[in-house]
Amino acid sequence: MERAAIYHQPFSSYAYGYDGETLHIKVRSKKDDVEEVVMIGADPYVHTEAGWQSEEYALRKVATTEEHDYWFVAMKPEQRRLQYAFVLKDTEGEEVFYGGRGFYENTKANRAVMDYYFKFPFLHETEVFKAPEWVKETIWYQIFPERFDNGDASISPVNVLPWGSKDPGRDDFFGGDIAGIINHLDYLADLGINGIYLTPVFEASTNHKYDTLNYFEIDPHFGDKETFRKLVKEAHKRGIKIMLDAVFNHIGDKSPEWQDVLQNGEESKFVDWFHIHSFPVTPGENGNIEGQNTLSFDTFAYTMHMPKLNTANPEVQKYLLDIATYWVREFDIDGWRLDVANEVDHAFWKEFNKAVRAEKEDIYILGEIWHDSWLWLLGDEFDSVMNYPFTQTIIENFVEERIQPTKMVSGISEQLMRYQEQVNHVMFNMLDSHDTARLLTRCDGDKEKAKLALAFMFAHTGSPCIYYGTEIGMDGADDPLCRKCMEWDEEKQDKAMLTFMKKLIAFRKEHQKTLTYGDLVWHKVDDENRIVAFSRTFGDETLTFIFNQGTKAEELPKEELAITAATHDVWADKAVTNIIVPAKSFTILKG
Amino acid sequence: MERAAIYHQPFSSYAYGYDGETLHIKVRSKKDDVEEVVMIGADPYVHTEAGWQSEEYALRKVATTEEHDYWFVAMKPEQRRLQYAFVLKDTEGEEVFYGGRGFYENTKANRAVMDYYFKFPFLHETEVFKAPEWVKETIWYQIFPERFDNGDASISPVNVLPWGSKDPGRDDFFGGDIAGIINHLDYLADLGINGIYLTPVFEASTNHKYDTLNYFEIDPHFGDKETFRKLVKEAHKRGIKIMLDAVFNHIGDKSPEWQDVLQNGEESKFVDWFHIHSFPVTPGENGNIEGQNTLSFDTFAYTMHMPKLNTANPEVQKYLLDIATYWVREFDIDGWRLDVANEVDHAFWKEFNKAVRAEKEDIYILGEIWHDSWLWLLGDEFDSVMNYPFTQTIIENFVEERIQPTKMVSGISEQLMRYQEQVNHVMFNMLDSHDTARLLTRCDGDKEKAKLALAFMFAHTGSPCIYYGTEIGMDGADDPLCRKCMEWDEEKQDKAMLTFMKKLIAFRKEHQKTLTYGDLVWHKVDDENRIVAFSRTFGDETLTFIFNQGTKAEELPKEELAITAATHDVWADKAVTNIIVPAKSFTILKG
Repeated sequence: MERAAIYHQPFSSYAYGYDGETLHIKVRSKKDDVEEVVMIGADPYVHTEAGWQSEEYALRKVATTEEHDYWFVAMKPEQRRLQYAFVLKDTEGEEVFYGGRGFYENTKANRAVMDYYFKFPFLHETEVFKAPEWVKETIWYQIFPERFDNGDASISPVNVLPWGSKDPGRDDFFGGDIAGIINHLDYLADLGINGIYLTPVFEASTNHKYDTLNYFEIDPHFGDKETFRKLVKEAHKRGIKIMLDAVFNHIGDKSPEWQDVLQNGEESKFVDWFHIHSFPVTPGENGNIEGQNTLSFDTFAYTMHMPKLNTANPEVQKYLLDIATYWVREFDIDGWRLDVANEVDHAFWKEFNKAVRAEKEDIYILGEIWHDSWLWLLGDEFDSVMNYPFTQTIIENFVEERIQPTKMVSGISEQLMRYQEQVNHVMFNMLDSHDTARLLTRCDGDKEKAKLALAFMFAHTGSPCIYYGTEIGMDGADDPLCRKCMEWDEEKQDKAMLTFMKKLIAFRKEHQKTLTYGDLVWHKVDDENRIVAFSRTFGDETLTFIFNQGTKAEELPKEELAITAATHDVWADKAVTNIIVPAKSFTILKG
Repeated sequence: MERAAIYHQPFSSYAYGYDGETLHIKVRSKKDDVEEVVMIGADPYVHTEAGWQSEEYALRKVATTEEHDYWFVAMKPEQRRLQYAFVLKDTEGEEVFYGGRGFYENTKANRAVMDYYFKFPFLHETEVFKAPEWVKETIWYQIFPERFDNGDASISPVNVLPWGSKDPGRDDFFGGDIAGIINHLDYLADLGINGIYLTPVFEASTNHKYDTLNYFEIDPHFGDKETFRKLVKEAHKRGIKIMLDAVFNHIGDKSPEWQDVLQNGEESKFVDWFHIHSFPVTPGENGNIEGQNTLSFDTFAYTMHMPKLNTANPEVQKYLLDIATYWVREFDIDGWRLDVANEVDHAFWKEFNKAVRAEKEDIYILGEIWHDSWLWLLGDEFDSVMNYPFTQTIIENFVEERIQPTKMVSGISEQLMRYQEQVNHVMFNMLDSHDTARLLTRCDGDKEKAKLALAFMFAHTGSPCIYYGTEIGMDGADDPLCRKCMEWDEEKQDKAMLTFMKKLIAFRKEHQKTLTYGDLVWHKVDDENRIVAFSRTFGDETLTFIFNQGTKAEELPKEELAITAATHDVWADKAVTNIIVPAKSFTILKG
């Protein structure tokens, strides 16, 4: 047995409260090395004259990656306290005892040493990660407001360009606004989405508004507070939630606060609002050259237009938390997406969580983090993050075709094992955004490819998000080209794509519980023919998905899919006798 | 290469801020499998036309356990942001790239994929774990007040027994009190200790006082507030810190709060102060039988005398935090030891940390946790825990002799790798306490064995703690026998042991920086002859320790100890030519 590969860590995604009475316990071993894992566990205080009264729990293998197998058990400790260890048996019959002090021979004597065990001291219901229920049912739609629709020409910037008159440059304005979004709420409701994520709408000088000037005002080119209030109300009427983008890592250099520092230097009352290493901070002086690593103050990346806020300063905290609660309290927004969330300190996010939850208990807090985010997802900071590592592995296989299906499945499994199960349920999954090239462009315009990737993402747990225009076949390379004006000319919209997306969204809603909670079993992962088949099972429902990325049709025997009864193709809505999946297409079976 | 054994986890003891500008980075590999580890790292935003501008940092092997090697590097990221990955080379020359998305071939193309890296997004000084400096210099002395000295017979319980007249039973009182401690402060100062940890002193009915009746009063049999204030003042005059024991997991069943619940049942205003599953909670009714797992309310273990407090209730929080700050503010205590800390929720401890730190910035917060405690040691809860896994492995080798030196060294290394380095510096290390049999009894009365174990513990990082009476050779089996009356009759004290302890304490103080911060290198671990030799190096000073647990003298060639120059035996204070360590003894060399 490869002991060096065996891993368990208490108080992590390997041991956590799933709800007020259930613990989830995982252990990892080298792939294909271990055959059986049993947990020995009980309340540490249950002793009789015969010694500690432990019980045995079989773990089952729930995921496999390139390197590892993951073993899992859910159990309810009677007194909410657990002392536990594992006995692993390998394929050659070798057994080992594994606990909090490492590996020991699996003898009765060793099993009687209480010190050798892991502990889960007490399952506090207040410490269980709980995300808002509604997020599990949500299909998000991301809007970049300057490019969705110009609903009120009277407030457009003076230099506004005719809608869609050209590919956008970095500094172009096309006059998109909030009225434009309200105009299309029926379109969005008809599409089926039930959550809108808006990139920033507060007063700022750029078209993307990530350089906030005033967090308490809607950008005048986007509208005013009344228009915004109307947007929320009209969206809510249609069962659509609204999530705003909070840019709290940095502020715009044109904000009064930074302008005060520029003007008054060390005498500014805002000096401690930033991380200033030396004065002057004047552009052009003291190493302060745009894009250089000689800046005398901290910024987002190396841009002097975005000085970093000192979120450890209680004044700054109060300022930002007032903003965060204001928009919830006064406008009833449903979520906050937190820009560059990973560069802000945890203490601030814990205060943020408390403050906004106090305003609205089921608000959704989404961090923009592109990497492993476990430390933000313990329950007292974020509900979720933008799940790039998960979607990236889908893109690498389905879109870029630079990895094989096996590697994708490994990446997906790794990512699912990384977080608590209830975190995965509300992960924010997306294949593109205003920060990446558009899916269709990454597919080199191949719409069938894009559909496969989208359907695959929708088949997994987490809340899928569509970037505006994906549903009508919009393309666009990296920023600024991924921020083109939404195409409202129906002649120019891809109606087939629209039909496909509506169907996919309706499918996600109809089978939401299975797609959120369903056990995932991989039936076939075939690199040569690029076939991936898996099922999701929840309660009575099993959905079996078969993706054929290859160049020829594939017939799959039912046994290979663990299908025993008659089956129905729920995607094509027809009965199925022989399971044949044409090239570059997918099938969803039920039964 | 055994990839399945390679491990790194961002935002953990594998990647953390050591101070405001320094990151510590670790990676783990299978023992003896990897020959070289290099980190590729830089600010993620440093891009030129030639691509991302990364640098290489060599890691060095800092620890080896039975299964793993640990590799380490400390570095200062210029902008306090780091993107990083590792290149590992094994003993057969095989190379692999290891980053946030797993393993890849170490090609230029793969190294150029930014997604494949780990991230340390921003090093916030406020998030760096900082423990009070003074703790590093502290040698603790634990006192069980009822058994240290009866300094004021007028306040002794009516059923008080003559001092030391018998071995203590569970319910005996001998009249030890705070005046008794004050009487012996000069003795303690002369011994050399500079911190006293007192088990509970608040009003309670038992002799151990873990069943608190009133947290705002000193137990009348121990003294009053004025006596306690005098203790703190007199201790401080002698450079001795005072740490109290906070029992916040549960309260005594005789407390007014629980009595109110017993009397008024569901109508009690204290109903939400506890975790009550059903009424009545009356002893003898509704499954409420002492020691049974049928209790209708949560308790410490299964004892109805200690109902568990609901620390998620803001009223309870306020009540407990008022206590915690009161004793700091009004009496200037220096530390809180937190009883059964692992069964109380983290949110409460975070509030506790904020509240007591606001009163006294350098207060020491010590959790009673016997197992892996990483989640409490991230900087916003505890400074340290009672380091049982560390000391237990010393006991298993030196005292119980049920493991070999190799296994002990593995356990010590594992424990040192578990936490951030600055946490290890202030760990609370002890070989016995009021909760265990006394060291000498565990040594079957073999004082030379006890001395080896004590000296070995003192040679390692962390603050050592001596349980009262150890210094004069007291013995005692498990509770209640480990709580005998302190022996003040000099005729009955072991003067040789006292001399030894004074010398050991003086040695710890003289070489404190080396013993706190010094790099640890194991030179010889010989299971057959039971020899362990290691050095601690800090700045110019290298101390080399050789422990011989065996039955014959051992001569060690200087080369084996990496000693090149002339050397001095600092323990015996004599020059050394040939290094010979007699059976059952130790030597400390310098030079």
